[in-house]
Amino acid sequence: MHATERSRSAVVEDLRAALGAEQVVDDADRLARLAADRSGTVQGAATALVLPRSTAEVQEIVRIADRHAAPIVAQGARTSLAGAASAVAGAILVDFGGMNRILRIDPLERLAVVEPGVLVSELAAAAERAGLFYAPDPVSAEWATIGGTIATNAGGMRCIKYGVTRDSVRSLEVVLADGSVVRTRRDTIKSVTGLDLTSLVVGSEGTLGLVTEATVTLRSAPGPSRGVSALFPRIDDALEAAAAVATEAAPPAVLEMLDDVALTAIRAHDPTIEAPASARAWLLAVTDARVGAEEELDAFERIFSEHRALRVDRADDPQRLDRLFATRRALNPALDAYTGGALHGDIAVPRGRLGAFAARAADISRSFGVIVSVGGHVGDGNLHPVVAYDPDDAEQARLAREAQRALLSAAQELGGTVSGEHGVGTEKLHALDGELSPRVRELQLAVKRAFDPKGILNPGRKL
Amino acid sequence: MHATERSRSAVVEDLRAALGAEQVVDDADRLARLAADRSGTVQGAATALVLPRSTAEVQEIVRIADRHAAPIVAQGARTSLAGAASAVAGAILVDFGGMNRILRIDPLERLAVVEPGVLVSELAAAAERAGLFYAPDPVSAEWATIGGTIATNAGGMRCIKYGVTRDSVRSLEVVLADGSVVRTRRDTIKSVTGLDLTSLVVGSEGTLGLVTEATVTLRSAPGPSRGVSALFPRIDDALEAAAAVATEAAPPAVLEMLDDVALTAIRAHDPTIEAPASARAWLLAVTDARVGAEEELDAFERIFSEHRALRVDRADDPQRLDRLFATRRALNPALDAYTGGALHGDIAVPRGRLGAFAARAADISRSFGVIVSVGGHVGDGNLHPVVAYDPDDAEQARLAREAQRALLSAAQELGGTVSGEHGVGTEKLHALDGELSPRVRELQLAVKRAFDPKGILNPGRKL
Repeated sequence: MHATERSRSAVVEDLRAALGAEQVVDDADRLARLAADRSGTVQGAATALVLPRSTAEVQEIVRIADRHAAPIVAQGARTSLAGAASAVAGAILVDFGGMNRILRIDPLERLAVVEPGVLVSELAAAAERAGLFYAPDPVSAEWATIGGTIATNAGGMRCIKYGVTRDSVRSLEVVLADGSVVRTRRDTIKSVTGLDLTSLVVGSEGTLGLVTEATVTLRSAPGPSRGVSALFPRIDDALEAAAAVATEAAPPAVLEMLDDVALTAIRAHDPTIEAPASARAWLLAVTDARVGAEEELDAFERIFSEHRALRVDRADDPQRLDRLFATRRALNPALDAYTGGALHGDIAVPRGRLGAFAARAADISRSFGVIVSVGGHVGDGNLHPVVAYDPDDAEQARLAREAQRALLSAAQELGGTVSGEHGVGTEKLHALDGELSPRVRELQLAVKRAFDPKGILNPGRKL
Repeated sequence: MHATERSRSAVVEDLRAALGAEQVVDDADRLARLAADRSGTVQGAATALVLPRSTAEVQEIVRIADRHAAPIVAQGARTSLAGAASAVAGAILVDFGGMNRILRIDPLERLAVVEPGVLVSELAAAAERAGLFYAPDPVSAEWATIGGTIATNAGGMRCIKYGVTRDSVRSLEVVLADGSVVRTRRDTIKSVTGLDLTSLVVGSEGTLGLVTEATVTLRSAPGPSRGVSALFPRIDDALEAAAAVATEAAPPAVLEMLDDVALTAIRAHDPTIEAPASARAWLLAVTDARVGAEEELDAFERIFSEHRALRVDRADDPQRLDRLFATRRALNPALDAYTGGALHGDIAVPRGRLGAFAARAADISRSFGVIVSVGGHVGDGNLHPVVAYDPDDAEQARLAREAQRALLSAAQELGGTVSGEHGVGTEKLHALDGELSPRVRELQLAVKRAFDPKGILNPGRKL
């Protein structure tokens, strides 16, 4: 037996001794199926996948990893688009699917205590049953786990009003790289007794510790969602209208945009979605205000009309709103189908630079000869540009990747970032130098070493 | 000349060479006057006080400190109540009063870029002139600096609705312990490309770096402040009413409480403030909603009445509200005057434990034979308990300090914290073990070392 194989089987043996045999998977075929996240990148063969059922079991797993210097990769629903949750060589994959209990919903303290494997949609539903509201709403809410969304500081459509996942996390229980367990802070609303380890762990993509329990903030239930969509003759009209909506007295709950490329693809994909050929951009503004929603909808309509909207559709109840959302939902499938291949991005720029970014994207499309669509969460400046290309044409595929890199650079040159909400993982590592100075990167690595001196937690990701 | 004196004069010489002579104070009398913050604690004689005018000058200062291994203490307005900004032996005090420019107010991006010496009230006024709103409102807003409030993650009365200072900080420019300067993140609304160094520096009380510029979030201007106050026959009635108000659909902007001890002291201090002797607690709920404010005021009135209010006062405009606030404003001067000596606290507990904390405070008052008042920001569970005692009675003064420690322990035993918003500084260091585990404290020190390996930044504070 080869030395590496020997050490791998020693790891598996220790894991089996610590956990039940059914909680440790080392069958190569099953492992291979569980090794990838949605980035498609896998960096090596994992040694085992484990399914802990308690914090104590997670501690045991980390102690074993520490002893064998084996890398640990935490996995929620493996929906990372950035390659933060896929296997690396020799890794112990920690699947939190078995730690999926909602431990407490507390209406007075306005919080929920949950295990990391709870689905975002399950927590949202439990909050709703208690007359409350869990605000973070990544598009993946139906299958993404709380632990995964904490690891990535996930966003969604409602960030313009409610902030990102970090803004809804009160405190965390974290298993550290040495197997010890800590609680990052007290569950009081205010506390200044320590450094803010909670915010540090949120968004750290599994590089600082393993979250085994989260206390998250719940809010009062919002009003019913209602909204107004509009089609515009020019993308600049839509962006100006979006800026006007975003700076209204009350921020909308959702403010989304699609461009002409997206509308063309969507028309081709689903002929029931109406959009005249003269329409070059689409906007949707949603309010969930409990009071004053009518006035907000009136303001959306007025602003859209003032910005030369070709057509305005108002949805005065959630059912009608769902029909308006159908256009937005069609975006990704339509672009994936458009030319057969699509690279999805996640940049953010200051709101005032969205027009400049759209212009740069048009330039990039022309100069690389690929199709580029810019759309997304214009309310907070977070776009998901898509490069569509013919996957059977190797040269086009190469140009598409180059165009995608050019889009990242363009975002950074405009004062923006290469990831608004998906994370860095492995996929964006190459672009970090474009926005983080060498001293900042050094500082982040020093913080990483403070948490994980041996570098066993999700090595090679995020930093 | 003594070795220490020699090294001190070498530091002063280097500072003089790097900055203008008028920017370096080393006169012992002037230094002594500038050495203390409002905690009253001074831990040693400073070597010099410097008044930088730019980030580059701050870098020079830190490089000199690094070279001489001299401690650095950043000072804003020296209003720290926790002893985070007073001198330590041999320190270079960095007074940011000369870096006090508002560099940008951006209505589209909803942000302001400011130097650390800007007063909170100046920024608030500048935002208001632009039709916008800077939410953090520590009581010290008229004299506290943005830099100081970022260092302490300052709170205030509006946190229940708008969060703490950290929630309004977008990004920071920070001079690190080696004299290098970093920007913590891009100014986009969303970004997940690095660890959250911004949140880490906010509230770190000058132990991780010196903030030389801050980009802070502005919001749409709120509506006029209006509110309802009420007197209750029992503190439990007031706490139940507060819980009902705090969990209403729309959170109030302000929710404050005073107890019977406070009311007695206030009556004695200012006879124009009306409160019948049967009143044992006072509540004030404020709304600044742009729409639906009438309904919120109605709800406050209804809830107060349902909880056996003896008297309800409604203020339908900011001027009338100011009269209701007079009672709250009288709290600290009234308690300071009551018996001549007063120790002010800053605990926070989960909202559901406020009643238990009040009961524990009453027990502590009885068993130590001192007067204890509990009041403050009940909306977010952050109370400022005050122990009143006769300062001419040494035994009483000793008992008062013991009672204060007992209050801290009580807060921690109830799942709370010894500082909701004032900070740790030197004054709360002794209590950290009551709420942060040894492993968490070790981790925080490891993070501190990652930022400041030589330990020159505000040594002995916070951690």
